[in-house]
Amino acid sequence: MVERDIKLDHERRARLGFDEAILCAGKSTAHLRKILERAGADSLLLTRLEAEAFESLPTALKSRIDYEPLSRSGFFGHVGAPTGTAEIAIVTAGTSDIRVSREAARTLAYYGAPALEVSDVGVAGLWRLMERIDEIKRHKIIIAVAGMDAALPSVIGGLAPGLIIAVPTSTGYGAVRGGETALFSSLVSCAPGIVVVNIDNGYGAACAALRALRGGGT
Amino acid sequence: MVERDIKLDHERRARLGFDEAILCAGKSTAHLRKILERAGADSLLLTRLEAEAFESLPTALKSRIDYEPLSRSGFFGHVGAPTGTAEIAIVTAGTSDIRVSREAARTLAYYGAPALEVSDVGVAGLWRLMERIDEIKRHKIIIAVAGMDAALPSVIGGLAPGLIIAVPTSTGYGAVRGGETALFSSLVSCAPGIVVVNIDNGYGAACAALRALRGGGT
Amino acid sequence: MVERDIKLDHERRARLGFDEAILCAGKSTAHLRKILERAGADSLLLTRLEAEAFESLPTALKSRIDYEPLSRSGFFGHVGAPTGTAEIAIVTAGTSDIRVSREAARTLAYYGAPALEVSDVGVAGLWRLMERIDEIKRHKIIIAVAGMDAALPSVIGGLAPGLIIAVPTSTGYGAVRGGETALFSSLVSCAPGIVVVNIDNGYGAACAALRALRGGGT
Amino acid sequence: MVERDIKLDHERRARLGFDEAILCAGKSTAHLRKILERAGADSLLLTRLEAEAFESLPTALKSRIDYEPLSRSGFFGHVGAPTGTAEIAIVTAGTSDIRVSREAARTLAYYGAPALEVSDVGVAGLWRLMERIDEIKRHKIIIAVAGMDAALPSVIGGLAPGLIIAVPTSTGYGAVRGGETALFSSLVSCAPGIVVVNIDNGYGAACAALRALRGGGT
Amino acid sequence: MVERDIKLDHERRARLGFDEAILCAGKSTAHLRKILERAGADSLLLTRLEAEAFESLPTALKSRIDYEPLSRSGFFGHVGAPTGTAEIAIVTAGTSDIRVSREAARTLAYYGAPALEVSDVGVAGLWRLMERIDEIKRHKIIIAVAGMDAALPSVIGGLAPGLIIAVPTSTGYGAVRGGETALFSSLVSCAPGIVVVNIDNGYGAACAALRALRGGGT
Amino acid sequence: MVERDIKLDHERRARLGFDEAILCAGKSTAHLRKILERAGADSLLLTRLEAEAFESLPTALKSRIDYEPLSRSGFFGHVGAPTGTAEIAIVTAGTSDIRVSREAARTLAYYGAPALEVSDVGVAGLWRLMERIDEIKRHKIIIAVAGMDAALPSVIGGLAPGLIIAVPTSTGYGAVRGGETALFSSLVSCAPGIVVVNIDNGYGAACAALRALRGGGT
Amino acid sequence: MVERDIKLDHERRARLGFDEAILCAGKSTAHLRKILERAGADSLLLTRLEAEAFESLPTALKSRIDYEPLSRSGFFGHVGAPTGTAEIAIVTAGTSDIRVSREAARTLAYYGAPALEVSDVGVAGLWRLMERIDEIKRHKIIIAVAGMDAALPSVIGGLAPGLIIAVPTSTGYGAVRGGETALFSSLVSCAPGIVVVNIDNGYGAACAALRALRGGGT
Amino acid sequence: MVERDIKLDHERRARLGFDEAILCAGKSTAHLRKILERAGADSLLLTRLEAEAFESLPTALKSRIDYEPLSRSGFFGHVGAPTGTAEIAIVTAGTSDIRVSREAARTLAYYGAPALEVSDVGVAGLWRLMERIDEIKRHKIIIAVAGMDAALPSVIGGLAPGLIIAVPTSTGYGAVRGGETALFSSLVSCAPGIVVVNIDNGYGAACAALRALRGGGT
Repeated sequence: MVERDIKLDHERRARLGFDEAILCAGKSTAHLRKILERAGADSLLLTRLEAEAFESLPTALKSRIDYEPLSRSGFFGHVGAPTGTAEIAIVTAGTSDIRVSREAARTLAYYGAPALEVSDVGVAGLWRLMERIDEIKRHKIIIAVAGMDAALPSVIGGLAPGLIIAVPTSTGYGAVRGGETALFSSLVSCAPGIVVVNIDNGYGAACAALRALRGGGT
Repeated sequence: MVERDIKLDHERRARLGFDEAILCAGKSTAHLRKILERAGADSLLLTRLEAEAFESLPTALKSRIDYEPLSRSGFFGHVGAPTGTAEIAIVTAGTSDIRVSREAARTLAYYGAPALEVSDVGVAGLWRLMERIDEIKRHKIIIAVAGMDAALPSVIGGLAPGLIIAVPTSTGYGAVRGGETALFSSLVSCAPGIVVVNIDNGYGAACAALRALRGGGT
Repeated sequence: MVERDIKLDHERRARLGFDEAILCAGKSTAHLRKILERAGADSLLLTRLEAEAFESLPTALKSRIDYEPLSRSGFFGHVGAPTGTAEIAIVTAGTSDIRVSREAARTLAYYGAPALEVSDVGVAGLWRLMERIDEIKRHKIIIAVAGMDAALPSVIGGLAPGLIIAVPTSTGYGAVRGGETALFSSLVSCAPGIVVVNIDNGYGAACAALRALRGGGT
Repeated sequence: MVERDIKLDHERRARLGFDEAILCAGKSTAHLRKILERAGADSLLLTRLEAEAFESLPTALKSRIDYEPLSRSGFFGHVGAPTGTAEIAIVTAGTSDIRVSREAARTLAYYGAPALEVSDVGVAGLWRLMERIDEIKRHKIIIAVAGMDAALPSVIGGLAPGLIIAVPTSTGYGAVRGGETALFSSLVSCAPGIVVVNIDNGYGAACAALRALRGGGT
Repeated sequence: MVERDIKLDHERRARLGFDEAILCAGKSTAHLRKILERAGADSLLLTRLEAEAFESLPTALKSRIDYEPLSRSGFFGHVGAPTGTAEIAIVTAGTSDIRVSREAARTLAYYGAPALEVSDVGVAGLWRLMERIDEIKRHKIIIAVAGMDAALPSVIGGLAPGLIIAVPTSTGYGAVRGGETALFSSLVSCAPGIVVVNIDNGYGAACAALRALRGGGT
Repeated sequence: MVERDIKLDHERRARLGFDEAILCAGKSTAHLRKILERAGADSLLLTRLEAEAFESLPTALKSRIDYEPLSRSGFFGHVGAPTGTAEIAIVTAGTSDIRVSREAARTLAYYGAPALEVSDVGVAGLWRLMERIDEIKRHKIIIAVAGMDAALPSVIGGLAPGLIIAVPTSTGYGAVRGGETALFSSLVSCAPGIVVVNIDNGYGAACAALRALRGGGT
Repeated sequence: MVERDIKLDHERRARLGFDEAILCAGKSTAHLRKILERAGADSLLLTRLEAEAFESLPTALKSRIDYEPLSRSGFFGHVGAPTGTAEIAIVTAGTSDIRVSREAARTLAYYGAPALEVSDVGVAGLWRLMERIDEIKRHKIIIAVAGMDAALPSVIGGLAPGLIIAVPTSTGYGAVRGGETALFSSLVSCAPGIVVVNIDNGYGAACAALRALRGGGT
Repeated sequence: MVERDIKLDHERRARLGFDEAILCAGKSTAHLRKILERAGADSLLLTRLEAEAFESLPTALKSRIDYEPLSRSGFFGHVGAPTGTAEIAIVTAGTSDIRVSREAARTLAYYGAPALEVSDVGVAGLWRLMERIDEIKRHKIIIAVAGMDAALPSVIGGLAPGLIIAVPTSTGYGAVRGGETALFSSLVSCAPGIVVVNIDNGYGAACAALRALRGGGT
């Protein structure tokens, strides 16, 4: 299977503009090692790679991975730095949501897209958001990461004209219901035209933003 | 049963400060008529009394009811006008939530408590709320009525120091889930100390506000 | 309330590019009439306006509404025809989903955006989709409307590089669960970067598409 | 992030009367340490601080924390003892709910509010509640902590006129559903005017009680 | 089918002590008529027979039915009056639950078992229950009918030693969830040994009580 | 708290016929030890006492506990052997349900009630049940323990006239939903008069059986 | 759309062996009429065609439809009678499930497959099933239609070696949850190898049976 | 219990064609050992046997087990190799679903049925499926294993005429809901006649396939 996975990268990039990301959660060290060894000179985006899993890899492979622990993401092989002006803003409600927003930022960086990151602007402290809103709303696309009641995408959606991609998070307990409350809340935002991805799916939000920037194919 | 219901009023008012409200939904015209006829000179609060149900009552009884169709509520018998300064504000997100906020306002009026009503200040149009927030936050108690994503109680909870009673509403379709999304969203508001009542329960929110104003008994 | 609603249009259009749409479901004829009479020379988008509700309006108002029964939508006042090349494709799985896809198409038309509509290309008859896929994938944005198992957005998401906005629909019975199965299915599509709006929310999908096309503000 | 968190305290206290509480669950020892070191002479309320997490802190920091293991709460820095007459009673159904009621009591103590705590008065042993009810009902606010069927707030709500804040708990298995049964049960109490906070949220109940006591701002 | 249904009665009564009850909900007048005509001299218990359905039957059949509208139940043919001392008490929380408790009482009457009925003793007015508890607890079996938070079976279960059969009801809206809140609440009562039947199933509670009184077979 | 728990035993036994059972799950060794030491010469029923928790107790206390690992139950102090003829049968569908049926059997034994235990008679191997049914149905009360689809109570309920107490279990994965499928399935059994207790609650089923055998109080 | 639907029939039959069935629920008389008129000499299977919808069709069309009201199904055009030996048995638990089992039988008849129908053999009256089981188990495929607790497929699955297709039905109230209890119960049957279709989907069960009989294509 | 389990094998095989499979999850090493020792010369299928559990068995027993770690399955005793032409294809969407599809393949192998296994043909890379579809659709029965949105069974169901058995898997997070999204999605596939087994139940799908191949008994 691994061989086929790696081979498919090129076709997929040509067709959709995406490499096949390696979701590392649930994969054994041996399995990850095989994938990385066969990748050869290709670059790969690794998601949900816990620090322990990263540490358990052989040094030779680790040295080729640009690892970021908060987002639990790794860039394998050569990945250039983002260039140009940021067209995407990533806005985060609470500090515990940053693990998700950073996954979005890292995915964008992997594909060379710079992004503005604004953290800790949940609506319970509205003036913090207000101080930054003029800067935020200039971006074509705003990824709004928020758990709990997910009020952030609604407030931004009423202030900014660009595409708003809500990422509900699973932060919290009880009526949070593992993120479903934030998910449903984002889907029924009274601000018109908010779109939503799966709970905690920073990677998916970044892919959607890239799709929106690139547009259709031929 | 009816006889006992009516008899109980006095004890209940003495103990809790509340008359027994008559929930009219699901009661036949004959049943309502019997209740009203036995009430005699007592006043009664009628909730969820649909316009058709009100119209189907005998003229003699209708003439003794102060009926308000939006909240579907009626005051039977003599109910004095509220007096004094409003200590409670009722704030509503969307126009379709007003049927619920009016039920709260009418319940307060029945018990003589004046309230400030502020409508149509959902967070998707944040400046509308901001224009009124200084006035709103001066009140001891704020009843925040909001369906959909119920972002309103969170935003107010971050701006006002008083008791915030969130009333989720069932307005909408799909991921609204009959109001459960707003209910859960209110329960996990990131603003500290928001309290919540059942979906569409304007009556319950008003009773809670009255409890908070009156305090304990002897 | 109505007066304020109408007044707000101009501010909202300036800020977000959207007029306030009038959700007609649950509004009485009298209420709708008042809204339309005060709109004056302004144009309005009416959604979820059932045929009976439309018919119950006075002739003078009806004559100013361009009504389309399948989508239950109306354009009040002067709305110009869409011009330019379509950048948005609206693709529909089953014939019973067309009520939703037409709502998206009509919303786009209201704002002057032409769209390609492709119907009845559910994946149970895969060749029907394959005959049209080259045409579809050239569009910057693809709105994929599908109920039941919502397999359509996944298949398109694997073939087309643009932004895919999935609209789950409530069509069906039993395990369809009022559209929640399609909703969750769209959210966990294995194709990367699919975004989702509320069940049956063609209007929201169109607004999201317009946001993506217009980008940020100043 | 940490720096901003700490800076915000003063503004928040001025506006709402609350410091920013530090929810310690899910935070690493290193992270907690940084927060406490930067707090300096400020006092902080620490919630959900497990005994192991407390023990893993450096001695110098531990010595400045007044830690209480049952509620898993800590007071960092100087926190004065509550003074005055208790206006709040905290009433608990079962012994396994005390972890939650103590969190409420500790939060009140942090803000200087004395409270009466009455434990183990679940309604399955009704006379235990009856022995204490006259004392309980004299309080302006009653926090009723109960899991399982959450019958306690209903019974108290029928006997006491003050504000009843129900805190459902997650105690139990099977149909307990992680506390949702107690949550829904509290929301539909037949006693009028019960308000509810999130499952196991003793902290939130205390904040609500403080809001009710302090009233509005200027 | 009808013929077989009727034939089976005798075997069933011999084996289990129950006739086959005819659940009338969803059956056409023609269907009901056929069942009754073939019953001949046999007696039958009719449940969920709405007043309109009863009225639509031919006079000859109606005259042979002892119909009770509150419980929507009918006795067809000769059914003797209950005799002996009541070993079963049926206790009801709210007036809207009486439709369910009466179904239990009528089922018991059909099988000749007298029962004590006590209504309107919900725990929000605890003293009403306390006035009757000594009388109630003398019975071997107590059927406790309660919707909303279903606190009644818990309170009784802590005061009475006999078998408590809880019947949750669907009364109410929002977090009532069609009776599931009362159902789950009854299942997790902190009083030991409460048993539960389906929502609104007064018939089933009565059958269970009869099973408990009669004991095993040979 | 512990002191009060122990003191209450005598009152409770007098009123309801039950001692207060000690649910050991979630209690620390220190806590359990204190409870047992204060019990003195009283006997106690310990439920959900895992083998590790039992082993961690001091030898002096362990020697006074009759521990049974499958049911995770212990009898502390002197508990006499059951005597007389069994009036209760405990019937179990699958081998993984025996942990629950043994809890019921042990609870009955603690209170001196003998019971017939029949295991491994799930309906997928119907002849195994049929070989034992004549013996089973002679009992006044049948506790039917079954997970998965919980078909066992329905089949027995159609064959035996006594009281059937269904205990749904949490055995299995996926659509088992932690036992909720068995719970709901038991509640809607087509056999008349089945009653149900919480998932995995063998203790509760035994208490209900004891209530049914003893009848009302004075 | 209609034209395309009809045209597709031939391709679909060649590929899968199925015509496109017309689900009539939710289609207007005008829409149905157009479909039937364009079908010409082709035969069509009509499902969920309510008696009123059938009656509202023009006489010329009605006369060409073989309508069966219990299953709400119609055969349009010439459909030959089933021939050969029945390889499929359709077994039904309760009389209210027959509307679903008949839909399966009618679908099989439309495709020329004879089937044995056995009704009213729910497991609460086990001997009724036992009298027929030898006849039933000789069939290659058994469609087991059952609502409520859906115990029937489990019992049959333990007695018969052929393919068991369970069809859960929505019959009942409360914990029936619109058929989800029967659905989940069927999915976790302890008999090995039971397969399941959507709630009330007699049509789907018949299609599955036909697939199993015909096997693969070329 | 163990003795009875083993004895039953022969009857069951005669009646249904299945041995009793040993579900090893949740069984202790001692328990497994006893089962295997008593099996003697009989062969047994072991499912959900984790590598650690396998390793903990005595060498003498391990040497008699053909263990396969991916499917966590073991053949105990002599199991002949499958012979003949494959009539069953097992098709898998993602690499993380292979643990389930291999369980199906191993179960078939245990009973001597050869099967074609095709992996990694999820619909997000449609051409991978298309390359293999002609080979796949020649099989009488297709087991389609897919998690997430479970679009695979729908696409195959529209292309292949044989029996399609969908196996939803629990792969993923958030809106995956432990596999329920894939389960519901499979149940409402728009391709006619798809049947479904429990989440992750590869064993059950194989049993169903064997039932379909063998047909009825005598």
